[in-house]
Amino acid sequence: MIRTPYLLFLGDAPDMLAAKVAIGIRDWRSDHAVGQISLPGCQADLKLSEMTLAEGRAAGAQTLVIGVANRGGVIGPHWKACLLEALALGYDVASGLHNLLRDDPDLVAAARAHGRALHDVRVPTVAYPIANGCARTGHRVLTVGTDCSVGKMYTALAMDAEMQARGLKSTFRATGQTGILITGQGVPLDAVIADFMAGAVEWLTPDADPDHWDHIEGQGSLFHISYSGVTLALIHGGAPDALILAHEPTRTHLRGLPERGLPTLEALRDTALPLAQIANPACRVVGVSVNTQHLAEDAFEAYLAEVEDRMGLATVDPYRQGAGRLVDALV
Amino acid sequence: MIRTPYLLFLGDAPDMLAAKVAIGIRDWRSDHAVGQISLPGCQADLKLSEMTLAEGRAAGAQTLVIGVANRGGVIGPHWKACLLEALALGYDVASGLHNLLRDDPDLVAAARAHGRALHDVRVPTVAYPIANGCARTGHRVLTVGTDCSVGKMYTALAMDAEMQARGLKSTFRATGQTGILITGQGVPLDAVIADFMAGAVEWLTPDADPDHWDHIEGQGSLFHISYSGVTLALIHGGAPDALILAHEPTRTHLRGLPERGLPTLEALRDTALPLAQIANPACRVVGVSVNTQHLAEDAFEAYLAEVEDRMGLATVDPYRQGAGRLVDALV
Repeated sequence: MIRTPYLLFLGDAPDMLAAKVAIGIRDWRSDHAVGQISLPGCQADLKLSEMTLAEGRAAGAQTLVIGVANRGGVIGPHWKACLLEALALGYDVASGLHNLLRDDPDLVAAARAHGRALHDVRVPTVAYPIANGCARTGHRVLTVGTDCSVGKMYTALAMDAEMQARGLKSTFRATGQTGILITGQGVPLDAVIADFMAGAVEWLTPDADPDHWDHIEGQGSLFHISYSGVTLALIHGGAPDALILAHEPTRTHLRGLPERGLPTLEALRDTALPLAQIANPACRVVGVSVNTQHLAEDAFEAYLAEVEDRMGLATVDPYRQGAGRLVDALV
Repeated sequence: MIRTPYLLFLGDAPDMLAAKVAIGIRDWRSDHAVGQISLPGCQADLKLSEMTLAEGRAAGAQTLVIGVANRGGVIGPHWKACLLEALALGYDVASGLHNLLRDDPDLVAAARAHGRALHDVRVPTVAYPIANGCARTGHRVLTVGTDCSVGKMYTALAMDAEMQARGLKSTFRATGQTGILITGQGVPLDAVIADFMAGAVEWLTPDADPDHWDHIEGQGSLFHISYSGVTLALIHGGAPDALILAHEPTRTHLRGLPERGLPTLEALRDTALPLAQIANPACRVVGVSVNTQHLAEDAFEAYLAEVEDRMGLATVDPYRQGAGRLVDALV
């Protein structure tokens, strides 16, 4: 568990896209972010208070979160001076970069000298059990996609936020690096050893109140052959009571697999639901989440209406419309 | 790759069941086994030449293979004296035990002193790629089961042996510890990091001659929620041209999951085939392999005939009948 609140490190981000993690924290856990810190040349601005490291500490920040992805995932020398100073000032440091903080001897030495923690959220820190398949109390909803990166995390975060706003019992359960940095905890599922994937998801979604919903962050796709095993472990370990289907309608092929097209939403439903019912026979499909960012303003509503009519399911773009109708369909 | 031939270490195996790995090597790669070595109290006998370590070396053995599983998977002190002597005599040592050879400082020191290798086949030694989903030449067949431990490895080994006997091009591709020890190579799939599972299976089954068949060792079951993600990674990484369905008809529940029953062979077919066709649209189901060891001698043939009639597929127990009819259906 990563100590909050955070100061968000933007480094020398070349654009806003590179600051995806920091944006996620600002948008979904704004009370976790006391401010931002940039290096010379930074082209990203989250419109948070720009602070020095000392100012961040004075504002209560406990952890410096690397909110930026750079080319190659390496920790550059100009970054390192800032990270070393942060450790000296009493910050923990958290990162989702491919290159691990723990593999940098200078950072390790500084963390040890100052008694601080380095969090590499790509690396599992728990010895997860093998899944036991036992029924759990409380409810779980999982978003499954026609492809990777179609808005599954966004959908789960939006549904969780909507339920919280309504005073309902709800928890977002992170299964990827960005989700873990946003919420401060979770399972980096793509880095878990094969035999323990489903058990890690059971561990992440324990018994809860009968009226509580876990919103499990989806990963990969049953139709994406590189990652489908991770997706099925999520479905069987999560044993969801409800599925949301996620789709990006303008994509011409599966991400990273140029020769393979996306399945239809019907094919996704007809594949995912029977597999989910192996773990939880009561599972049902309750809605469709469409990422319409590449559809024109005057076209996206017609597309959503067409899908809603075709599938007979509440169909929204949670970014443009909020997740209210998905939550209505769920509870 | 483990150097052959082997001397098979039986330790103080309490019964034949504990010597499963050694039996597999004797039955499937008899030319790999120059003999066996037992410790006092051993209750397993493979009817191979009983040899001292020195006699094994004189007979050409390169590797001492721990062919026995003991309670808890630990390396007992009476075993260790034998393993240390083996390293001194020029043997490599190979093991599929949970407790790793490499974690024993005495064995590590002896291996280093004598320039020998310790093979822990539970641990991946290759940095596998992420699966790319590209079509490969040659053919692949995968056995999928209604449960774990229903005879998938046996079926694949039997089909490979039958094809070799017919002079056809064929390779058994091991994906588990026993299979790797039997053949000396493979991928310990249940120990691979989630993101690389399907890529490891692609790596294991590369381009081959157009008339060559890879017999991929199956793992887990799509219906076994603890391991189903591993199974789907095998299906999508292997991109099989053909599936064999495997079943054990007397089992009352899924292995280790006492509240969950087995699916029917029809349910297995209808779940596995569409998933396999995502990776390889030409995939078909060609036969059924039934483990009838718990059916009486006068009952098993009637059961196989009933399944064959019901499923419309060649149905055999390869242990009792050989895999000839499965190979006929395949090629």
